[in-house]
Amino acid sequence: MTASASKSTISALFAQYRPPAVPAVAMTGFWASRIQAVREKTIPILRERCDKAGMFDQIDPARPIPAMRLPFHRSSVTSQMYWDSDVAKMLEAAAYALSGKPDAALEKMVDEIVDMFARLQQPDGYLSSWYTRMQPGKRWTNLRDCHELYCAGHLIEAAVAYFHATGKRKFMDVMARYADHIGREFGPKEGQRRGYCGHEEIELALVKLARATGEARYMELSRYFVDERGREPHYFTQEALTRGENPAEYFHSTYEYNQSHKPVREQDKVVGHAVRAMYLYSAMADLATEYGDASLKTTLEKLWNDLVTKSMYVTGGIGPSAHNEGFTVDYDLPNESAYAETCAAIGLAFWANRMLGLGPDTRYADVMERAIYNGILSGMSQDGSLFFYENPLESRGKHNRWVWHRCPCCPPNIARLVTSIGTYAYGIAADGVAIHLYDQGEATLDVAGAPLRLRQTTRYPWDGAIRIDVDPGTSRALNIALRIPGWCRKATLRVNGEAVDLKSVTRDGYAHLHRTWKPGDAIELSLDMPVERVFANPAIRQDAGRVALMRGPLLYCLEGADNKRPLNNYVLPANAAIDAKFEDGLLGGVVTLSGTALADDPEGWGQDLYRQAPVARKPSPIKAVPYYAWDNRDKGEMLVWLREG
Amino acid sequence: MTASASKSTISALFAQYRPPAVPAVAMTGFWASRIQAVREKTIPILRERCDKAGMFDQIDPARPIPAMRLPFHRSSVTSQMYWDSDVAKMLEAAAYALSGKPDAALEKMVDEIVDMFARLQQPDGYLSSWYTRMQPGKRWTNLRDCHELYCAGHLIEAAVAYFHATGKRKFMDVMARYADHIGREFGPKEGQRRGYCGHEEIELALVKLARATGEARYMELSRYFVDERGREPHYFTQEALTRGENPAEYFHSTYEYNQSHKPVREQDKVVGHAVRAMYLYSAMADLATEYGDASLKTTLEKLWNDLVTKSMYVTGGIGPSAHNEGFTVDYDLPNESAYAETCAAIGLAFWANRMLGLGPDTRYADVMERAIYNGILSGMSQDGSLFFYENPLESRGKHNRWVWHRCPCCPPNIARLVTSIGTYAYGIAADGVAIHLYDQGEATLDVAGAPLRLRQTTRYPWDGAIRIDVDPGTSRALNIALRIPGWCRKATLRVNGEAVDLKSVTRDGYAHLHRTWKPGDAIELSLDMPVERVFANPAIRQDAGRVALMRGPLLYCLEGADNKRPLNNYVLPANAAIDAKFEDGLLGGVVTLSGTALADDPEGWGQDLYRQAPVARKPSPIKAVPYYAWDNRDKGEMLVWLREG
Repeated sequence: MTASASKSTISALFAQYRPPAVPAVAMTGFWASRIQAVREKTIPILRERCDKAGMFDQIDPARPIPAMRLPFHRSSVTSQMYWDSDVAKMLEAAAYALSGKPDAALEKMVDEIVDMFARLQQPDGYLSSWYTRMQPGKRWTNLRDCHELYCAGHLIEAAVAYFHATGKRKFMDVMARYADHIGREFGPKEGQRRGYCGHEEIELALVKLARATGEARYMELSRYFVDERGREPHYFTQEALTRGENPAEYFHSTYEYNQSHKPVREQDKVVGHAVRAMYLYSAMADLATEYGDASLKTTLEKLWNDLVTKSMYVTGGIGPSAHNEGFTVDYDLPNESAYAETCAAIGLAFWANRMLGLGPDTRYADVMERAIYNGILSGMSQDGSLFFYENPLESRGKHNRWVWHRCPCCPPNIARLVTSIGTYAYGIAADGVAIHLYDQGEATLDVAGAPLRLRQTTRYPWDGAIRIDVDPGTSRALNIALRIPGWCRKATLRVNGEAVDLKSVTRDGYAHLHRTWKPGDAIELSLDMPVERVFANPAIRQDAGRVALMRGPLLYCLEGADNKRPLNNYVLPANAAIDAKFEDGLLGGVVTLSGTALADDPEGWGQDLYRQAPVARKPSPIKAVPYYAWDNRDKGEMLVWLREG
Repeated sequence: MTASASKSTISALFAQYRPPAVPAVAMTGFWASRIQAVREKTIPILRERCDKAGMFDQIDPARPIPAMRLPFHRSSVTSQMYWDSDVAKMLEAAAYALSGKPDAALEKMVDEIVDMFARLQQPDGYLSSWYTRMQPGKRWTNLRDCHELYCAGHLIEAAVAYFHATGKRKFMDVMARYADHIGREFGPKEGQRRGYCGHEEIELALVKLARATGEARYMELSRYFVDERGREPHYFTQEALTRGENPAEYFHSTYEYNQSHKPVREQDKVVGHAVRAMYLYSAMADLATEYGDASLKTTLEKLWNDLVTKSMYVTGGIGPSAHNEGFTVDYDLPNESAYAETCAAIGLAFWANRMLGLGPDTRYADVMERAIYNGILSGMSQDGSLFFYENPLESRGKHNRWVWHRCPCCPPNIARLVTSIGTYAYGIAADGVAIHLYDQGEATLDVAGAPLRLRQTTRYPWDGAIRIDVDPGTSRALNIALRIPGWCRKATLRVNGEAVDLKSVTRDGYAHLHRTWKPGDAIELSLDMPVERVFANPAIRQDAGRVALMRGPLLYCLEGADNKRPLNNYVLPANAAIDAKFEDGLLGGVVTLSGTALADDPEGWGQDLYRQAPVARKPSPIKAVPYYAWDNRDKGEMLVWLREG
């Protein structure tokens, strides 16, 4: 881990908490089998699908330019202007996989694709397969709709990941040249374009590039894109006029769709396409951290409160509507028709993680954990081969994971999230670290100029007991901030066997242990993890009179496979006992919840569709499994929000 | 009424119950204001919209042939191959309006349009504006998709209605010539096409034409269309091949969509497009009545039981899915996303009414009444100027009646239903009559060769007391069958003041009064009409744990206008008293229901979206109005199925 540790060094421009690079953290408990599934199943699938979709035919200048295949809704094989980004996300996931475990064949695959992009790069640094090979001469003519800078962003993220994983600079250098080209092209100066991308992504990618290279100009370019967004005269309006189009005929009707309806600091409501919104806010949070920008921080807090108090599913899923792949009105959270795109929940984890850059606060970590363990992890089958785009909270059995999708954004997105999970678990500050997520494993973090090794021993999330062995190298003063999750009503903490008074050290849900740490020190954290009934705000009409079950960070659901009756026939009494039990052989090993509910009894009802007397109820056993694990067995019903009473 | 009465004479081919012609019945109570709204508002609107949509430009041979306007989804002004049918339904409604009240200007309007169609008719009798003027040379090339015989059917219905209303034969003669042309073109004989329409309608129209003209050949042609449907080799498959198309590329994927997936007598499940299904079954019921066809009767009973025990909303609405405008799977009855097209509920009333041709049975009349007073009447605003296409059972306030629709089938359909309501109220047999619906008013029915006058005095549906004054002309033996609705748990009956033992005279929910009736006889029927709680079959997951309120035939709903809290915050205790009160000034005069429910109390909940304790509840008044009257005030929430417990 020493070699990796040096890669976790990130150039500090301004103070605050920053994530470690992926190679610095190994998650070998709960996450090990998921990372293995992505490495062994998902990545080869992604590589193959990129190939089958013809992405490399479009990208590789050594191949003939392919014929344009128009995107009909019924066809899954089309030319797409955003193919570069899908390949990039696959590369990024591969890089993270390499961080965890060397694999010469995988590295060779990445190198070959990097070579394609290097060959594709134009003498001026420009790099886009679409505008170089499919629509030459049209570059920078439609930032609103065409994902041009978005593709650049994903390639930058992949390049940074590959640099951290292998130390090879070629890909990052290619992308830095492209970023420099973009920096010349866009900006507030005379002769520059005052544009920004219709699909945010480049902003957060430039922050990563700045941190990896130590070059402040990439941070500045990110700040330009964020600051310029939504200003008048509106760039997308001007650009449409230049194309000879009527700006009012914008397909998505409103610039709220891409969060450019007003300057970002004037925004106080989460609107539009959910993934776009999350990627923008992620970059804003990074910039607030890096520049100590109080106005961005204030804006982000307003947006955060709007989202988590009005528009977030209990899964951490967001964006209820398929229509705009995004937000509708406050408290509109339909369960069966939930869009809740996997990518949007991933975007929420990105944002939450970056809010932690501004200092440990479990409000953000709680949401990050909620999204990761529920609304994100549900997006992939247990073996890593099948995927959800939508993540509903109720299904009559017809919603099942698919092999591939016309718009294949979710599979590589979840693959890169899972393989980089370690980076979400810690934050590194000048004077110490914050631990956001718990899992068996080891981290070697560069803190205050020297490695700090932290070894977690735990069965989390199945059990709330966590031991952390601390090795600061030599005795030295550091702050270790431990998250006490918001879902936990009772926690105890010991350092080297001595009880710590949690109340006196806890701020914003983190226990701050300022002390001189020495090799051999041990922290023991115990988080009470009973089964909890969860209720929704009465303004969410779809959840009225219903209850969900959680244990620790995990949301539970009922599936047809474990329960005899149609799931909406069950009513969970307020006083029904619910037992938790680890079942080794089930769904890769999960804690299940069991109890006795009441069930509407169809016997004796007869054929009537409607009648003047209610149905009788009988006691009936129920069993719940973690929501993330649903649809891994025979197709059948699924329900999160049970009737209560 | 004597002139009209003679028009109610219908040629008997086979025995059983047949509907009176519209002019024979005047409904002057509950229905008077609705009929007036259609006459004064809806019909002028329909006439104007037909004009604005360019329908007459397409139909009238005296005008230049208009340019083809392709049907884009976003445009409401397009050329449509089914325009003839929309004009026909408008004419039919106008004819019924004339039946109730002479109107020279309206009659002139109809005559002018009849003249257009007469001019449009080809020398061989063929009559279609689309295939004569827009796509000449293509007639009978695509029965599957192009509504060609469907348009003929609606024109025939309009022609029969106009004949009954005015005694004028011109329109009916035009349509009889077209029917004769169709009869030469289609049939089982050598040289005839063995086809039938993709959208059923011609079948039931030909029954009407046969009854009005006394010509058995139209009944025979109807029987041919019904019997031929779904036979192999499949006509639509052959026809697609002839057009050079791949039959497997049928847009709707399955012939279930138009109920031609198998011969009609082998069908036992209601499938596909709901309106198409209802129109087919209506014709089948007519034919079962006319031919005493036991195999059709058996088929219809299976189909009926399937529909009313598995796929009907409590409103009488049917067809939950917008996707196929029809049926999905058993017990799938979503409330907020309900399609439940107004036309489909109208089709159900048509079918139910025709099932009564096989003899009085309140199972059919109950469903007919349920659809008419709830899922149909909801389709039109109180003043007759605004319309629903979909009739959901829950709305967050964004579902509101519109002025017009790209596919304008519902407004004229509800207009003709309302103005012909009298024909659904009675059935005439060889030896007497059945009374299916109650409303203040008068009917003069030709029974056993002489007029039987029935005068109803009642405030139904607000009150269950009904007095019927009987005038058979001279003393004579007749059976009068009175419906005792299925929703009524307690009824009493008196004839000339003497109590009748209901049990001994009631069969299939009708009290049969066989006796010698004389002028001055009076029947007094009293139907108990308390507020009833209605519960759904536990297999309907969307209604689990919920209750609806009904009183008599009327379903109730809560609206935002009458209730302070979000409607899903209310929980109706099983023992809560509910009071009924007539409010003269509200919604044209309605009985409202009031009581005290519990309501989730958002005070004290705070900002949390989710938490570990349920919301507190407080007693809170609720008020319900008839479902049919919703969305006639300020836009707001609506809910039929209340939480119960």
